[in-house]
Amino acid sequence: MTDFATWIATQKDRTEAALGRLLPRSDEAPATLHAAIRHSMFAGGKRLRPILLLAACEACGGDTEKALPAACAVECIHTYSLIHDDLPCMDDDDFRRGHPTCHKVYGEAIAVLAGDALQPLAFELLLQSGGAELVKELAVAAGSKFLIAGQVLDLEGEERQISFDELRTIHEGKTAALLTCCFRLGGLIADASPQSMEALTTFGYNLGLAFQVIDDILDCTQSSEKLGKTAGKDAASGKSTYVSILSLEKARDEAARLTNEAHAAIAPLGQSASRLREIADHLLARDY
Amino acid sequence: MTDFATWIATQKDRTEAALGRLLPRSDEAPATLHAAIRHSMFAGGKRLRPILLLAACEACGGDTEKALPAACAVECIHTYSLIHDDLPCMDDDDFRRGHPTCHKVYGEAIAVLAGDALQPLAFELLLQSGGAELVKELAVAAGSKFLIAGQVLDLEGEERQISFDELRTIHEGKTAALLTCCFRLGGLIADASPQSMEALTTFGYNLGLAFQVIDDILDCTQSSEKLGKTAGKDAASGKSTYVSILSLEKARDEAARLTNEAHAAIAPLGQSASRLREIADHLLARDY
Repeated sequence: MTDFATWIATQKDRTEAALGRLLPRSDEAPATLHAAIRHSMFAGGKRLRPILLLAACEACGGDTEKALPAACAVECIHTYSLIHDDLPCMDDDDFRRGHPTCHKVYGEAIAVLAGDALQPLAFELLLQSGGAELVKELAVAAGSKFLIAGQVLDLEGEERQISFDELRTIHEGKTAALLTCCFRLGGLIADASPQSMEALTTFGYNLGLAFQVIDDILDCTQSSEKLGKTAGKDAASGKSTYVSILSLEKARDEAARLTNEAHAAIAPLGQSASRLREIADHLLARDY
Repeated sequence: MTDFATWIATQKDRTEAALGRLLPRSDEAPATLHAAIRHSMFAGGKRLRPILLLAACEACGGDTEKALPAACAVECIHTYSLIHDDLPCMDDDDFRRGHPTCHKVYGEAIAVLAGDALQPLAFELLLQSGGAELVKELAVAAGSKFLIAGQVLDLEGEERQISFDELRTIHEGKTAALLTCCFRLGGLIADASPQSMEALTTFGYNLGLAFQVIDDILDCTQSSEKLGKTAGKDAASGKSTYVSILSLEKARDEAARLTNEAHAAIAPLGQSASRLREIADHLLARDY
């Protein structure tokens, strides 16, 4: 088996090549819009969601070439949510991953529209990897009860002290739902068994929450330079995080617990899930 | 055949009942978001797009009951585009159809998210009326080269004098693409022949442009009260319209010409297209 770092780099490269091919070119009309979309799509993302989708597809014996458009689709949804999240009326962020945000470069109106355009593009791309069952999966995860619900509760939570359960609900929506969706899409494209689909779902949910706990930890332990975005922003704005609600030490324990749950979920998949295990280790082993 | 006014009222009622049933309830979490969605979805719309979809389905011998979720889906796309179009960073409108706009009631952040949530909801609903071919159709029409392209060109056109061809390109994107999509979705759900699909496409395109020419005319000839939105806004802002580019008289001629093209397109469909003819007459016979 290819070593993990090489495998990750390969999937990232494949995803970026596919994005380069599948996204509208910057010289296609309307050029400003397509340039804005490419600005945000190629602003140094880790391509975590596409990689998760490809890993799940591979773990279930599927053809990852067929899964590439779907991998691009989930990155479109993720990027649209970041573009809108960064808007002045939302989190009002000037930088993300060390790059100026979409509205800083192209103005707010184009940023709203660039985000808007990425949603139908995602569904169009998805159809290159499969049919209606993929659309249903992504539509629910990106919809008002998951991805958007997380954003709404996050906004509402800024105004008051929230509980641990409320925080978890926010992150189930903002992060875990889309990550779980990535694993499930990969499984569906590979025509995975119901047992494998259930394993991927539990794995994705726990990994997604673990990932978010770690992001909260990193926000208060790392420098802006290392993060590629403004650090310490959560604490400065008095926003509730796993760290502020649980303490740093207990947040670290929670991240470890969730990762253990994730590992337990895919134990029945045996050897075929070893990439998924490596991914879980990789995400938890970030320097927090 | 039921008389036209009764038929229209029936389709509008059916659409609103279906929307009431199919949209998330206002008490489902996150309640603020779902209330904002319902605020804009039930703010006095004419339900033109759903009615067009149902008419096309009926004209092609399809089951309009099966088409109802798709009819709701196109209304979701239309409403999301209005919510975002009304934002302060876009057209900055306080009222639409006599009701306060979404961001005036719920704030900008929730308005952005309510619009965002309506897109995946549209694709989810669409799947209750059919499969991947419907998703492809709506994803393209709502995407960066049609609906959004129209918005972008419209924004860019505010800053300078634009040509007749540029204006037509704006309205092809902003209006004609989605109306054409409605007719095509209705045809696809009815399993229409390729000839019928082509007739519906040409019909929709011409009707869509005609509809927009008339909107431009009404903006400068009618009162705000009658329009249910601020009248004369285009002229006041120096925005290019069919009227400002062509003159009022020539804009009226253009509307009539486009409607004739629309009628010619569906002539081969004979008697089965009589509702579509009534719709074209109805839209052109608005008091302009």
